[in-house]
Amino acid sequence: MTTGVRRRMGVEERRQQLIGVALELFSHRSPDDVSIDEIAAAAGISRPLVYHYFPGKLSLYEAALRRAADDLAQRFVEPHEGPLGSRLLRVMGRFFAFVDDHGPGFSALMRGGPAAGSSRANALIDEVRQAAYEQILKHIGIERPPARLALVVRSWVSLAESTALIWLDGREIPRAELELQLVHDFAALAAVSAAYDEEMAQILVRILADEPADGPFGVLVGRMAALIPGPA
Amino acid sequence: MTTGVRRRMGVEERRQQLIGVALELFSHRSPDDVSIDEIAAAAGISRPLVYHYFPGKLSLYEAALRRAADDLAQRFVEPHEGPLGSRLLRVMGRFFAFVDDHGPGFSALMRGGPAAGSSRANALIDEVRQAAYEQILKHIGIERPPARLALVVRSWVSLAESTALIWLDGREIPRAELELQLVHDFAALAAVSAAYDEEMAQILVRILADEPADGPFGVLVGRMAALIPGPA
Repeated sequence: MTTGVRRRMGVEERRQQLIGVALELFSHRSPDDVSIDEIAAAAGISRPLVYHYFPGKLSLYEAALRRAADDLAQRFVEPHEGPLGSRLLRVMGRFFAFVDDHGPGFSALMRGGPAAGSSRANALIDEVRQAAYEQILKHIGIERPPARLALVVRSWVSLAESTALIWLDGREIPRAELELQLVHDFAALAAVSAAYDEEMAQILVRILADEPADGPFGVLVGRMAALIPGPA
Repeated sequence: MTTGVRRRMGVEERRQQLIGVALELFSHRSPDDVSIDEIAAAAGISRPLVYHYFPGKLSLYEAALRRAADDLAQRFVEPHEGPLGSRLLRVMGRFFAFVDDHGPGFSALMRGGPAAGSSRANALIDEVRQAAYEQILKHIGIERPPARLALVVRSWVSLAESTALIWLDGREIPRAELELQLVHDFAALAAVSAAYDEEMAQILVRILADEPADGPFGVLVGRMAALIPGPA
């Protein structure tokens, strides 16, 4: 990560470089185990110079989190083209790529890492969840969701988080399988809600109407129908 | 909550009383807003006497968490009688009763409360998750679960958590509906996994075989079949 080049950087450029170096280190080991000395070494500058740009490890950690949060929120942005199932599948691909890139740091943060109790870190986590939630609603095309739809979308965002954390702990199931499974889980959670609520049933029917038989939702419906005994 | 009776209590009895008083206060307001003075007043003793039993608010908070964690873990214990769907429904009833009783404290803790960053609090949360996970596996009757079943059960425990948190934020959907919905969600997550994995399909078929048509799983299957277009 060190450039090796000792040219002068501007203040903002140096800050951005330090954030990038720190994010890389905080991503690959538990942030508690990363020292300012290491960050300084990786950036090719002295320890006091790091402190010149950031008052301490926490502020550098929070700046790295800010960048990671912006990156992650951006991954939920997806063109409004094609069926919903395929859009969600692309989003999940980018989400798991992020989790893959930032594994140990992601786990440490979500399980209560060094900045847990830092209200800043918690606010950033909530911000990403909210951004993901809003993006999904946009794709469903409903701006003011009824409480049951809001619950399905928020629960699903949380399910994606917990699935990613469980995956990181051993990586026993292939990533691609989980990406697809989460798209199915979205349909499944919506279907459970729709089974008891007319408004949700209408939303689900509208979503499924646009799904091709060979898209992720279509394939699931076919497999489910084979699995679940139909009405006699 | 104050007894008003000024009889002498033994050390352990007094500690237990203080934990009960503190848990009550920590449950109904954000624990950050509860002072030692209030706890002392509610227990009918002086502030210095509280410090005689607990070195500070954090240790009292952790003791209250310990009691709450034991209580919550106990609610996942359910006799091994009758179909799985009905068992899970009773477990969810007790889980939501707990969440209802400890609302603000539960939210504050799970969203990163005063003891977040306290590794003790995080360990207690994980302990309850693990206890819930193990109880559910016992009911399914599988001691060494394949990775996909472990994922379904752990994801579902996490889904129950996040659903409860979303419910607490406004209580827009009736509690009983969410308890039933989570039982359905369990079946739905298992079904998604079973749609792609033969081992999971066998586990699901075995579970569903014991379900009566009018139990929570049976009713869902009927409603789903009506909702999802069957094979042509």
